[in-house]
Amino acid sequence: MIFIGERINTGFKDIKQAVIDKDPGPLQEWARRQAEAGADYLDVNLGAVSSNPADMCWMIETVQQAVETAICIDTNKPDILAEAIKVARPGALINSTTAADEKLDVMMPMAAEHGASIIGLVMDESGTPTNAEKRVENAAKIIMKAQELGIPPDRVFLDPIVMPLKYKQEQAKEILAATGQFGLISDPPPHIVCGLSNISNGTTYKKLINRIFLAMAIAQGMDAVICDVLDTDLINAALTAELIMNRQIYADAYVRK
Amino acid sequence: MIFIGERINTGFKDIKQAVIDKDPGPLQEWARRQAEAGADYLDVNLGAVSSNPADMCWMIETVQQAVETAICIDTNKPDILAEAIKVARPGALINSTTAADEKLDVMMPMAAEHGASIIGLVMDESGTPTNAEKRVENAAKIIMKAQELGIPPDRVFLDPIVMPLKYKQEQAKEILAATGQFGLISDPPPHIVCGLSNISNGTTYKKLINRIFLAMAIAQGMDAVICDVLDTDLINAALTAELIMNRQIYADAYVRK
Repeated sequence: MIFIGERINTGFKDIKQAVIDKDPGPLQEWARRQAEAGADYLDVNLGAVSSNPADMCWMIETVQQAVETAICIDTNKPDILAEAIKVARPGALINSTTAADEKLDVMMPMAAEHGASIIGLVMDESGTPTNAEKRVENAAKIIMKAQELGIPPDRVFLDPIVMPLKYKQEQAKEILAATGQFGLISDPPPHIVCGLSNISNGTTYKKLINRIFLAMAIAQGMDAVICDVLDTDLINAALTAELIMNRQIYADAYVRK
Repeated sequence: MIFIGERINTGFKDIKQAVIDKDPGPLQEWARRQAEAGADYLDVNLGAVSSNPADMCWMIETVQQAVETAICIDTNKPDILAEAIKVARPGALINSTTAADEKLDVMMPMAAEHGASIIGLVMDESGTPTNAEKRVENAAKIIMKAQELGIPPDRVFLDPIVMPLKYKQEQAKEILAATGQFGLISDPPPHIVCGLSNISNGTTYKKLINRIFLAMAIAQGMDAVICDVLDTDLINAALTAELIMNRQIYADAYVRK
């Protein structure tokens, strides 16, 4: 499983304030905690705090001073990405393009140019699909664009776009069905990722819903997740699901304490 | 989700002793506890304690004196089933036939005759399949036999035969893949069930493995399970998975306390 730590995001108050104050402390503390918890990437998201690429670059450089972990550059703005990708160490993951031409034609070439991996949200000009079929169609478009540019499928992370269970309950099944089909689009298959916390948005039992949905998505082939990597129950659910999918060798002590 | 309580089984020492002593107490206590926990069926298994059909009939009648819950008659012996099905209340579930002719030609007609439902283990004369394809082939044979005898698919519970993760790790993925295909065999689809505890046999973190496997199987269409219905974490995992599959309407307080 590829774990992407979600915490360095100005959606969290402490990170927002730290970015405003240019205080490296909270970013580096969360970078270390998530890295120690086994994060493969650290998502870095400037959000609406600023539209200045220099602020995103400061965030990335601040994180990179604390840990060696690769960065997941979380922005949908090409001008921010263009600067951020220059300061991020090699092996970064771009989060994200979509299947809309205006995104795909700009973000995907940047991934190609910098040897980066890239997350592709399976939405397009008409928005987020409401069924599995359209999600798969958009996924295929993203993979085709990557192949055109010489980016191998295993540097593409397809994201089925998780919707809140509480408000769009009928979508979860479509998302799982789409996930099950993404693995068939290319050989080797692309990675499949999601922003997990969306599923439990507004619910009472968030952590339970997060970990059960993740297990179900792993059963459909998901192999990466943007999540709270400090949630031990979640990580253990994912590790168990990976054993069941025969992706890790069973050992009696496979869980994280 | 159709929950089948596993506890009235002579594999448990207290039940074994109670059957030997003809002491109704433990059977009725477990019947009540499982019924209160929401069991839809109570599995009753005489095991190797006796080969006398009268002993199985005593178990069933003892349970039926305590609760109204339907019985899951757990025996692979036709002579025991022939007597047990007469004392079980209408609506019983036979556990089980296989796809082997010697079983199918005997057990399935009894289900037809008594209006019972029946579990079909997807093994045949050559044993338990090691891949998904052969499991599906055996499943189709079971469904065809049921249809020949006028038993509708929704009275058939296909069981993909869960193997221990620790000893047959590569099987879990095949089992999930087969489960995903069972729902396509007939319209309406059959039920899909498993004896859950097999998956965690010999492992250190049995309950974790049980509930994560169940969530993954529900993602593939499983809708029934033979399990410890008193394991609240397991039931909540199953309820969560059912919400995600849009089989129950979301409510903030959907879990069991």
